[in-house]
Amino acid sequence: MSESGAVTPGPATPAGADRPRYAYLGPAGTFTEAALRQVVSPQDAQYLPQTDVAAAIGAVRSGEADYAVVAIESTVEGGVTATLDSLAGGSPLVLLREVLVPVQFTLAAAPGVTLAEVRRISAHPHAWVQCRRWLAHHLPRVVHVPATSNTAPAALLAGRAAQAAADLGFDAALVPPTAVDTYGLVPLAVDVADNATAVTRFVVVGHPGEVPPPTGADKTTLVVHLPDNEAGALLAMLEQFAVRGVNLSRIESRPIGDALGRYSFSIDAEGHITDERVGEAIMGLHRRCPHVRFLGSYPRADAVAPTVHVGTADADFVTAREWLRAVRGGRAT
Amino acid sequence: MSESGAVTPGPATPAGADRPRYAYLGPAGTFTEAALRQVVSPQDAQYLPQTDVAAAIGAVRSGEADYAVVAIESTVEGGVTATLDSLAGGSPLVLLREVLVPVQFTLAAAPGVTLAEVRRISAHPHAWVQCRRWLAHHLPRVVHVPATSNTAPAALLAGRAAQAAADLGFDAALVPPTAVDTYGLVPLAVDVADNATAVTRFVVVGHPGEVPPPTGADKTTLVVHLPDNEAGALLAMLEQFAVRGVNLSRIESRPIGDALGRYSFSIDAEGHITDERVGEAIMGLHRRCPHVRFLGSYPRADAVAPTVHVGTADADFVTAREWLRAVRGGRAT
Amino acid sequence: MSESGAVTPGPATPAGADRPRYAYLGPAGTFTEAALRQVVSPQDAQYLPQTDVAAAIGAVRSGEADYAVVAIESTVEGGVTATLDSLAGGSPLVLLREVLVPVQFTLAAAPGVTLAEVRRISAHPHAWVQCRRWLAHHLPRVVHVPATSNTAPAALLAGRAAQAAADLGFDAALVPPTAVDTYGLVPLAVDVADNATAVTRFVVVGHPGEVPPPTGADKTTLVVHLPDNEAGALLAMLEQFAVRGVNLSRIESRPIGDALGRYSFSIDAEGHITDERVGEAIMGLHRRCPHVRFLGSYPRADAVAPTVHVGTADADFVTAREWLRAVRGGRAT
Amino acid sequence: MSESGAVTPGPATPAGADRPRYAYLGPAGTFTEAALRQVVSPQDAQYLPQTDVAAAIGAVRSGEADYAVVAIESTVEGGVTATLDSLAGGSPLVLLREVLVPVQFTLAAAPGVTLAEVRRISAHPHAWVQCRRWLAHHLPRVVHVPATSNTAPAALLAGRAAQAAADLGFDAALVPPTAVDTYGLVPLAVDVADNATAVTRFVVVGHPGEVPPPTGADKTTLVVHLPDNEAGALLAMLEQFAVRGVNLSRIESRPIGDALGRYSFSIDAEGHITDERVGEAIMGLHRRCPHVRFLGSYPRADAVAPTVHVGTADADFVTAREWLRAVRGGRAT
Repeated sequence: MSESGAVTPGPATPAGADRPRYAYLGPAGTFTEAALRQVVSPQDAQYLPQTDVAAAIGAVRSGEADYAVVAIESTVEGGVTATLDSLAGGSPLVLLREVLVPVQFTLAAAPGVTLAEVRRISAHPHAWVQCRRWLAHHLPRVVHVPATSNTAPAALLAGRAAQAAADLGFDAALVPPTAVDTYGLVPLAVDVADNATAVTRFVVVGHPGEVPPPTGADKTTLVVHLPDNEAGALLAMLEQFAVRGVNLSRIESRPIGDALGRYSFSIDAEGHITDERVGEAIMGLHRRCPHVRFLGSYPRADAVAPTVHVGTADADFVTAREWLRAVRGGRAT
Repeated sequence: MSESGAVTPGPATPAGADRPRYAYLGPAGTFTEAALRQVVSPQDAQYLPQTDVAAAIGAVRSGEADYAVVAIESTVEGGVTATLDSLAGGSPLVLLREVLVPVQFTLAAAPGVTLAEVRRISAHPHAWVQCRRWLAHHLPRVVHVPATSNTAPAALLAGRAAQAAADLGFDAALVPPTAVDTYGLVPLAVDVADNATAVTRFVVVGHPGEVPPPTGADKTTLVVHLPDNEAGALLAMLEQFAVRGVNLSRIESRPIGDALGRYSFSIDAEGHITDERVGEAIMGLHRRCPHVRFLGSYPRADAVAPTVHVGTADADFVTAREWLRAVRGGRAT
Repeated sequence: MSESGAVTPGPATPAGADRPRYAYLGPAGTFTEAALRQVVSPQDAQYLPQTDVAAAIGAVRSGEADYAVVAIESTVEGGVTATLDSLAGGSPLVLLREVLVPVQFTLAAAPGVTLAEVRRISAHPHAWVQCRRWLAHHLPRVVHVPATSNTAPAALLAGRAAQAAADLGFDAALVPPTAVDTYGLVPLAVDVADNATAVTRFVVVGHPGEVPPPTGADKTTLVVHLPDNEAGALLAMLEQFAVRGVNLSRIESRPIGDALGRYSFSIDAEGHITDERVGEAIMGLHRRCPHVRFLGSYPRADAVAPTVHVGTADADFVTAREWLRAVRGGRAT
Repeated sequence: MSESGAVTPGPATPAGADRPRYAYLGPAGTFTEAALRQVVSPQDAQYLPQTDVAAAIGAVRSGEADYAVVAIESTVEGGVTATLDSLAGGSPLVLLREVLVPVQFTLAAAPGVTLAEVRRISAHPHAWVQCRRWLAHHLPRVVHVPATSNTAPAALLAGRAAQAAADLGFDAALVPPTAVDTYGLVPLAVDVADNATAVTRFVVVGHPGEVPPPTGADKTTLVVHLPDNEAGALLAMLEQFAVRGVNLSRIESRPIGDALGRYSFSIDAEGHITDERVGEAIMGLHRRCPHVRFLGSYPRADAVAPTVHVGTADADFVTAREWLRAVRGGRAT
């Protein structure tokens, strides 16, 4: 385990060869691991910790893992750009499931250290941002030592006695609550995140194949490039959904990367790809937009069924199609 | 022939039994007859003159005629309400073809009458309206005697000598140019319509059955009731067309008749019912609107092909459908 | 009084010189007169009967009358094209008030005539249309003799005994209920209109000047030409209203008259020209459309106040304007 | 200078008291410094280096600095969330100017180190992401040691000889080209960013006060909260711009932070707050949205004037306003 938090995923043991392999942002104690535990227990799967989101997703692409569990959106930071960007390009992957994990932080140290002694705190930049107000109030002069993950500093602290911890360049760390015990640390302050209701949404990423069947409360994730950089193009894209009565639960702009002002959009639409209204809407996108990538239809974590507007149920589409067929055949008007 | 212009259509003669029967607003000399001549010659069809548009359309419904030729729109008067309303209700009929006829009027009288002597002019109210400025300028004190058709007064004048014409209640008539010779009248003034470029659009009405095949420059006529009387409903209806790139060449509101403020819309959309974009648009109407009636797809008289916007050609729909099928089957993203 | 229904408006008597002069479609007994009576009693105004709507409106333009009362819309026929077209062009006039009149018809004759004897019925074409189903059912063989007004045949019948009525060319007439007594006729059948709830909307037309003050339940009438003949232009026009939360209670297309497919729109918007949202919407029309004519703001006959959507009350506009002024002055963000 | 890249801004010297104070992400050699040099030379201003974007913006709020220069958007990473979020909340600040800086990276080391010897590279996470493909190709086994800024590792390397550099935990760094000389380093590879055309947009942040005057090629930046989390609300917001002919050059969604699915939008609109069309559009936002913050109107770095659509020039608004005033006063129609 290096100080940069690099983690080498272990090879699948023979005994585990028949269990599905899940790559995730490790090591033990991360929020991502908490998400993974919601998906599958360590007894039923091989947990393959990775150093970052791109590596976790890459492990699925390379065949090293069957699935990856990665954060995709948080109430505080918004879309996780590494995840959005890794999924938007490269060989096709799809989302199979989503899980929600509450986000809290504990300020922890090696045994023997007190809050008053803390001068330098190691924290992932996102963790630092989420505790900024608490830190400004309680430890206004503390210095931020960046970490590559939420648990990397915990692992480092775990290896040192208090008197030696200063050699690490920091004397405390912002860590997920589950990491305190995992690494034998001492909590100096709990629930230090500024936003008490923060939650992060994680997704299970896998290979395209069978789309999970519709449950009645599903979500469809897409990446869409607009035909040009006019405001009118975004309006036209949204109208493709609106005219079929499909609501969007998330829309994130991401730069395409080739010039300022060129955006792609990461979208969550309410409904399943097998819904008639969703299918027709995304066919509309496919016809009008230079690039549309389907990133999966999967059950919503909150199990909330979408509002189905008048005339947009599957049966309405079927009836309309039969009517059109009759009209085209001269059998109806 | 009565003064009200009533015309009794003759029974089909045995000799004509194999020729198609066309009902139209007669008698000889009307603009409608001029339209009918563009459609089929008197040698190739039975011409069945009718007293009004409703009767012509009714003759098709009753089986008395195979087709009707009726005016549907003029540059001066707009939609012909009798035609629009007859087609909007009752048993289903469809439009099979359209023809355009320039509209001009001649002020005519029996032989021996001069312009200076004219005091009372018989004219169909529409003809009167279309010559109002000419009349106000040249014959400011003349009185309007209404007629049920453009040729009824010509027929009456034809039966009288000049000295006896006053008994008719009028001494001149506004008639189509072709009626002057037909009825042996004398032109007092030609081209008296105020609008020199006026044209009337006529349609051939028949029974549903085979829809005329697409020519690449077609028109589709519809009657649509909106879900409620909000402005938003009209906007939503127009968006069903706009989002599929279908332009409208005509839109006419007509009261539904049960309350003020409730409208149906008579619409001409560019394109043929077999076009993918037209089909999807009108399926959208069918899903959202309480009533949609298809009134036919037929070649445009002006043979102008519609602009096909990016992503709205048939091939784009086919490609999008294949892509959706692959996506739903887990074979693409 | 001629058989064509022509009516010469009488000169204002000296005694009446100080009472306002109202032109209307006369003579006594018309629906328009019933509307006029709702507006002002004959004791308080000079009633100036006219032969048609264009003449009534023309009387205001020429100075012969102060006001005109004319039908503008009916549940059966829709917009009254003569009224819409007369107001759309010519010197500017405005609507000052609207009144609603139920539309019913009585089949009446001279004393001594029975229903069974009726062969020919005189009726204004609109009246004929509105009673078509009743006529088809009760008098299937009757012939229509067109009249220029609803009361012209009543006046003619009033001058003849039953035995002489046939000389008129008809033996009964469809007339407004009030015309039966006025002209000393006998009702053969009452309430013969097919639509028992039919109503016609009349408006009082006058010269621009003071706009009637807002009542909280007002209507604003406009004529708008679209920038071109695309469907998109209609959509854009409707969005000018929608984005300011202004609903439309009526929209009628009328041909501009110079070519097929060129339309103007006659619009009733909910609200008063002094409402902020209405003002901004019609400024939007003025900026984008080649022609906008304001035809008045006036109280709704039904006194129904419009729904005011969030953010579209006058106070919202005032607050927004003050905020913008502060922002522009560098005093707010 | 600490290993975490923390920089303490120096107090304004007496000699510098009359020069404007600019806070920026320091120390010397950063891209931000390159941007600042485009704005004002070190002779004409006090450069106050800060440890991060939030600190730079905070220095303006606290009065420690007059202005801040911060990155707001890059072609690779999109919107700079720290900047967007700092500006969206807190006491009001505005953008006064924008400058563009090409983004390139040099892989540099202390003198004596060769490319073949590099095992661990220190880099700001954004720099690491932007050079990922180059690194994967040329140094596939290299380990990432995160840094808090692009120049922090350069400063560290500057203090060590090659033989001692390993003690830092890394032996090379990804740094801006200007940092190579500044810190006395040796370039191992130049132009190692994957995207050769990458550019970052920086803005000058200051206190509200006088808005920079319009130049004809301006941009207006806004933060907008939607009334609710429906897709329809975003559509409605975009229509506020579209109906006034205002194009958007950037739109970024950011989580509001209180719940998943609640977004605010950071928007750049083409045009200046004093433009009539921009003013009316943002008044529309102010009326309909729960929160709108004006973040300034300032000249576009590319000096491209916006397309002014028909009917949306200032003169069109002025004419429409005068017309409305006349209409309301009864002096026009």
